[in-house]
Amino acid sequence: MLKLRNDTLIRALLRQPTPYTPVWLMRQAGRYLPEYRQTRARAGSFLKLCKSPDMACEVTLQPLERFPLDAAIVFSDILTIPDAMGLGLYFADGEGPKFERPLREESAIRALAAPDPDTTLRYVLDAVRQARVALDGRVPLIGFSGSPFTLACYMIEGQGSSDFATVKSMLYRRPDLLHHILSVNATAVTTYLNAQIESGAQVVMLFDTWGGMLSHAAYDEFSLAYSKRVMAGLTRERDGLRVPSIVFTKGGGNWLESIADIGCDAVGLDWTIDIGAARSRVGAKVALQGNLDPAVLLSSAAAIRHEAERVLTSFGNGSGHVFNLGHGISQYTPPENVAALIETVRSFSTRFH
Amino acid sequence: MLKLRNDTLIRALLRQPTPYTPVWLMRQAGRYLPEYRQTRARAGSFLKLCKSPDMACEVTLQPLERFPLDAAIVFSDILTIPDAMGLGLYFADGEGPKFERPLREESAIRALAAPDPDTTLRYVLDAVRQARVALDGRVPLIGFSGSPFTLACYMIEGQGSSDFATVKSMLYRRPDLLHHILSVNATAVTTYLNAQIESGAQVVMLFDTWGGMLSHAAYDEFSLAYSKRVMAGLTRERDGLRVPSIVFTKGGGNWLESIADIGCDAVGLDWTIDIGAARSRVGAKVALQGNLDPAVLLSSAAAIRHEAERVLTSFGNGSGHVFNLGHGISQYTPPENVAALIETVRSFSTRFH
Repeated sequence: MLKLRNDTLIRALLRQPTPYTPVWLMRQAGRYLPEYRQTRARAGSFLKLCKSPDMACEVTLQPLERFPLDAAIVFSDILTIPDAMGLGLYFADGEGPKFERPLREESAIRALAAPDPDTTLRYVLDAVRQARVALDGRVPLIGFSGSPFTLACYMIEGQGSSDFATVKSMLYRRPDLLHHILSVNATAVTTYLNAQIESGAQVVMLFDTWGGMLSHAAYDEFSLAYSKRVMAGLTRERDGLRVPSIVFTKGGGNWLESIADIGCDAVGLDWTIDIGAARSRVGAKVALQGNLDPAVLLSSAAAIRHEAERVLTSFGNGSGHVFNLGHGISQYTPPENVAALIETVRSFSTRFH
Repeated sequence: MLKLRNDTLIRALLRQPTPYTPVWLMRQAGRYLPEYRQTRARAGSFLKLCKSPDMACEVTLQPLERFPLDAAIVFSDILTIPDAMGLGLYFADGEGPKFERPLREESAIRALAAPDPDTTLRYVLDAVRQARVALDGRVPLIGFSGSPFTLACYMIEGQGSSDFATVKSMLYRRPDLLHHILSVNATAVTTYLNAQIESGAQVVMLFDTWGGMLSHAAYDEFSLAYSKRVMAGLTRERDGLRVPSIVFTKGGGNWLESIADIGCDAVGLDWTIDIGAARSRVGAKVALQGNLDPAVLLSSAAAIRHEAERVLTSFGNGSGHVFNLGHGISQYTPPENVAALIETVRSFSTRFH
């Protein structure tokens, strides 16, 4: 395999010295880029774009043509697994993801099976393979999945929700059913991420978008325990190189110590926690990724510089920080603001290394 | 003034000994009660119900007729102040609160003024007075308001939002404008809460529903600083009795120590933080209110008992805990589940006192 020309991300995730703080942005290949909107128009829909390895590969590389980013992330969706399970993922115009056949009946739950990534999720693996070739060792390629719990949220509720009342009703009324779903999901996610690693992903990331809306005790039992199971089953080395893992729980500040303990190399932070405080809590165990509020990118270059410098300064000296947003980039972000951000991180961060 | 026959809430908020853990529920006078739905139908709309002191008083007392609650909270809305400022509060069917004239133009922002509660908010003060008389010393009456920041969120955005992008754009682009709004709001909220105290409220509570979506640094500057200003201006004693204050920030777990430092008597917790851990962090300074996930009330009596006992046990021995939900009660809650909850808290909590 080709040697990475820029391995700053990998080194930072493993808390090894780097010359500057590496940076990439969640959802960096996305609607804020005119060239992305063009490809998507050509594809016809978001889902068709995801399912075409050629076009997915194309948009994966788009942000790298504009900005000196330190990573690419394969263009895909966090909900590919339940779609492969037959739940029928679709996107209504201007709305979030939905499923045609939400998982509610006990018989359907008992019949749930982890999909074989080599068949039903082949399009993702092909996109990974193609992107890896196209990157040609420029920067590492990140593979990803929704966490077992976050997948279950959408599978049961059938769509996003402000309170996920259906999921929580099951959690408190029939915890056995939810545990069954989560157990199947954990197997599916592990197999899926390992297949992405096998196909060329050099880092993997688990997105736990909804774990943070659980009660403190329920989070451990229904979200974290299954992310931990995924971590335990991950391929840790490929071609003699460590494949670092990142776990991101939105609203996870209350559980930072527990997340840092499940065997991941790095913890993703949203913007509500001070990264310096997070580092004192868990920085001896894991690297940290984050944590600029994506809303800052809707403001001015001066405000962006100020806020990015604040995050970098709060983390402080030494390795173990991957600069990122605390959530996906907004579709309304002007691309020139992203340029200002990346430039600030690159130039301002050298003083800390 | 009549002596309170049940002052358990007041004593717990001041961390004085009590025979059991007092309990009330956020939004306890609400849609889950058939008698509330009847009164509301009679009123014609939610807002007409709020603005009729007779009917507001009536629904304030309804939950106390069913359950042995330790407090009443005046029936009102957190957004009465911006309505009194002329922004035109309304509720579209099945949706959250909206404003007809959101605050966006600099000229409108500069013209903003704190309303005189004795005129434009008279209906709330009348409801407080009537409820206090109707309660006849049975339990304390709680008055409340939205926090300066949460009011600003709705005033600027014009409605709820998943990311409050308009508010945050102003925060990063024109912080001077946002500070101006917050400053007017802080004056308005202080005057309003003091008028409620003057009219008979024996406890006051500040609801900071949206502060928790700010970045760590922005929270201190734009939410907490103005809640602190309100605290500093509150009437602390009335008829020789302390009027305790409660500050609730949804998603406030990251800032617990800071919130406990602004001069409130108690901090409200949502359900994402372990109340025992919260107590070790700030229990020497303030009482804690919370923190059952409202979704638990959608399950079975057995699950409700189990989860309520878990909260009580986590807080542990001694005073300083007011049992509550971590957010408002769901309209889909069966009233008999509330009965099971209150009964559990009353009977199980005596062992800790």
